[in-house]
Amino acid sequence: MPDRAREENLVLDPQGSASSIAEQLQGLHPADIAAALERLDGDLLRAVLAELDTETSADVLIHLDEHALEEVLAELETPEIADIATELESDDAADVVGMLEDDRRDEVLSQLEDEDRRQVEHLLQYEDESAGGIMASELVYLNRDKTVADAIELIRQAAEQVDDIHNVYVTDGTRRLVGVFPLRSLVLAHSNTRIGDIMEPDVVSVSTETDQEDVAHAFSKYDLVAMPVVDPSGVLVGRITVDDIIDVIHEEADEDISLMVGTREDELHEESSMRISRIRLPWLVIGAAGGLCSALVMRHFSLSLERVLALAFFVPVITAMGGNVGLQTSTIIVRSMHSERGLNDAVGERLFKEWRVALMNAVVLGAAIWAIVGFWLGSWQLAAVVGGSLSMVILVAATLGAVIPYALRGVGIDPAVAQGPFVTTLNDILGILVYLGMASVFLTAIS
Amino acid sequence: MPDRAREENLVLDPQGSASSIAEQLQGLHPADIAAALERLDGDLLRAVLAELDTETSADVLIHLDEHALEEVLAELETPEIADIATELESDDAADVVGMLEDDRRDEVLSQLEDEDRRQVEHLLQYEDESAGGIMASELVYLNRDKTVADAIELIRQAAEQVDDIHNVYVTDGTRRLVGVFPLRSLVLAHSNTRIGDIMEPDVVSVSTETDQEDVAHAFSKYDLVAMPVVDPSGVLVGRITVDDIIDVIHEEADEDISLMVGTREDELHEESSMRISRIRLPWLVIGAAGGLCSALVMRHFSLSLERVLALAFFVPVITAMGGNVGLQTSTIIVRSMHSERGLNDAVGERLFKEWRVALMNAVVLGAAIWAIVGFWLGSWQLAAVVGGSLSMVILVAATLGAVIPYALRGVGIDPAVAQGPFVTTLNDILGILVYLGMASVFLTAIS
Repeated sequence: MPDRAREENLVLDPQGSASSIAEQLQGLHPADIAAALERLDGDLLRAVLAELDTETSADVLIHLDEHALEEVLAELETPEIADIATELESDDAADVVGMLEDDRRDEVLSQLEDEDRRQVEHLLQYEDESAGGIMASELVYLNRDKTVADAIELIRQAAEQVDDIHNVYVTDGTRRLVGVFPLRSLVLAHSNTRIGDIMEPDVVSVSTETDQEDVAHAFSKYDLVAMPVVDPSGVLVGRITVDDIIDVIHEEADEDISLMVGTREDELHEESSMRISRIRLPWLVIGAAGGLCSALVMRHFSLSLERVLALAFFVPVITAMGGNVGLQTSTIIVRSMHSERGLNDAVGERLFKEWRVALMNAVVLGAAIWAIVGFWLGSWQLAAVVGGSLSMVILVAATLGAVIPYALRGVGIDPAVAQGPFVTTLNDILGILVYLGMASVFLTAIS
Repeated sequence: MPDRAREENLVLDPQGSASSIAEQLQGLHPADIAAALERLDGDLLRAVLAELDTETSADVLIHLDEHALEEVLAELETPEIADIATELESDDAADVVGMLEDDRRDEVLSQLEDEDRRQVEHLLQYEDESAGGIMASELVYLNRDKTVADAIELIRQAAEQVDDIHNVYVTDGTRRLVGVFPLRSLVLAHSNTRIGDIMEPDVVSVSTETDQEDVAHAFSKYDLVAMPVVDPSGVLVGRITVDDIIDVIHEEADEDISLMVGTREDELHEESSMRISRIRLPWLVIGAAGGLCSALVMRHFSLSLERVLALAFFVPVITAMGGNVGLQTSTIIVRSMHSERGLNDAVGERLFKEWRVALMNAVVLGAAIWAIVGFWLGSWQLAAVVGGSLSMVILVAATLGAVIPYALRGVGIDPAVAQGPFVTTLNDILGILVYLGMASVFLTAIS
C-alpha cells in the first residue's frame, strides 16, 4: 500500500526553514499538507505556502480550517489571492473570495479573468446555506441531440477544468435539464449513438434556493455522488458534489450539538480564552438567571421550608428529573423532525405517545422515590409529596419538551433551540414551583 | 424537471388494494417507495412488496428503516429472502442475511449460488462497524499489465453486477493493490495503453479492521467517493462507497446526541410506549440516584440550612451552573478528539486552556451573583459565600468535564459517555458539597 500519499501524523520541525519543510511535504495529499501546516505558527505557515507552486498551495488552502485560512488570506496580496482563486473550482473560489472584506473582494474580482469573475460573482449572490451557495458552476453537459462521440470530445476538453466527473447532464435547446447519464455509458455505448437515447430522463435535481439541509437529505436518500442544480425555470446552473454534502452533514451535526450545550465548534480554533469565555457565557447567564428565578420561587415558599426543612433536600432530584425528561423529549422530537421533514400529519399522535411514555416513567420513578424517601425519613406524607410532585414534574417536563419544538417551528425558529438551555431552565423553575406548591398545600398534613 | 422520480410526500390510501397501491408506486425511486410503504401497516406492506418484481422489491427493502425491514423479513420464506439477497450488492445482502436468526441464516445461505454465498459469508465475518463490515465485495480491478481495451471489456462485463463504478483498481500479480484510475481516463486514453501507465499509484486505502469512524474521517479528509479495502497483506478484498459513509456519519452523530440525552435513535420507530420508557429509564434513574445523593449531602448540612434557610434558595443556581459548565467543557473536549484523532501531544495545553476559560467565567458569574444576592437579600456575607462557591463549582465542573473524557479514553471507553448523565450528576453532587461546605465554614460570620 503506497503510504506516501497518506501521512496523518506527520510532525514538522517548527524550527526548520520554510524550504526544508516544503521539501518534506513534497508529494503529499493537499489535505495532509494542510493538516501538518495548521500546527505551525502563522508566519512559518505562510512562508511554506509561498514555497509551494500555486496549484498545490491553492489545494492546500481550501483544506485549511477556517481560522488558519482567514489568517493566511489576511497576509496575502490581492494578485496572489486572484491567482489562487483562478486555480480553484468556482465553489471554492467563491468561498475564498467571500471571506474577504468588501474592498479587497472587489480588487480580487477585478483581477480575475472574465469567465472566472462572472462565475464567482454569480455564486456569491446565493445564500451561504442554500444549494446555490454550495454548488460549483463547472459542469459537463450537452444537448440531447448530440452523440456519444461529441460527449467524449467534451470530456476531453473539460477534463482540465472539472474535477471528479461522475455524470454528464443532458439539456434541451434552452439549457433546461432533461436527463443525465453516468460516464460508464460513454465507455460502453457506440460513438454515434444519440445522447437522448442513452440518457436517464428521471434525474433528481434541486433548485438554487433549496436549503443545504434538504439537499443533504436528498443525497442521503437517493445515494447520490453529485446532483445538478437548476434555477426556478429549470435551467441547469451548477452541480453539487458529495464531498461538499459530507461537510454539510458534519456542520449540521456540530450545530445541533453546539446548540444543546451553548458553545460553538469554531471554539476549537480559537486561541483566546477571553473570546471562548464570551462564546459560552450567554448560555451560562441564561442558566444563572433561571437559577435566580428558582431562588425567588423558593423564597416565596420560605414558610413551608422553615416548617419542613427536609423539603429542600429534594429540590436537586426535582430539577434533575425535570431537566432530563425535558431534554430527552425535546431531542427525540427534534430528531424526528429532521428525519421526516414534511410529514406533519402525526403531530397529535406523537405528542400523545410522548405523554404515554412520560406517564409510565412518572409512575415508576414517582413510586421509587416515594418508597425511598418514606423508608429513609420515615415520613410517608413527605414521601407522598415528593413522589407525587416528581411524577407531576415529569409530566410537565415531557409536555414542554414535546410542545416547544413544534411551537418554535411554528413561528419560524429552528426547533433545535428547544434542546438548548431554555427548556431545561424553564423546567427547573416550573418543577420547583409544582413541588413546593404541592408541598405547601399538603403541608398541614405533614407537620 | 421530471418530478415523477421524486415524490417525497406521496400519501397512499391505506384502504387500497395491494395491487392498486403497487400500480401507484410504478416508476418511483425505490427510496420513495420505501418511504411511502413505511407508513402502511405490516400486512399491507408485505402484500404490496409481493406485487413488485424481485429486483424492485429488493431495492425497496434496503431503503426501509431497520424496524420495518425486520418485520418484513420475519414474514418472508427463506427462498424469497435468498432471491432478494441474490439481487442485492454483497454488502446489502450481508446486512439482510445478518439480521436473520442463526438457523434461518444458514438456510438462506445454503440457497444462494456458490459465488454469492462465499461473498456473503466472507463479509459476515467482519465486525459490523469495521471497514470489512461495511464494504462490498463487488469491484472492478485488473492487473497493471493489461490495456485500456481490456479495462473497457471488463467494465462491459461488470456493468450488470456493480452499481456506480467510479474508479477501476489496479493490482499486481498477487492481487495486491498498486493503483487506481477514474473512469474518465478510459474515455480519454488510447485503447492499447498499458494500465500501469495511466494509473495513479498513490491510492488511499483502508484495512478491513479499520473502524468505520476512521474510514469516514478519511473519506471526508480526502474528498473521496469510493475507497478500496485491503486485507493485512495488502490484497484487495472490497470497496466502500460514499453513500455508506453518509450513513455512518449520520449514525455516529445520532449516537453522540443519543448518548448525551440518554435515549436511542431507534426509539423513533418503536411503537410501544412501554419499550420506549424502558430505553429512557436508565438515564433517569442515574439522575434520580444522583439527586438522592445530593439530598444526603444537604441533610448532612441540616444545621447550617436551619440557621440560614436562604442558603437553600441558591442550590438550583449551583447545580445549573455546575451541570452547564461541565457539559460545555466535556462536549468541546469530545468534539476536539473527534476532529483531531491521533493528535495527543496537546492534552496538557488543552486542559490549561479550558481552565483559563473556566476561570474567566467563574470570575464574571461569581461577581454577578455576589452583587445580585447582596443587593437582593442585603447580606453581603451570604452573597460572598454564594458567589465564591459558585466560582469554585465552575472550576471544579470544568476540570471534571475536561479530565473525564481523557480518563475514559485512557481506559478504552467511548469518551462521548462523558457528555451523558455522569458528569452532570457528579457535578450536581460535588457542587452542593462545595457550596454547603464553604457555607458552613463561613457560617459563624454570616449568622
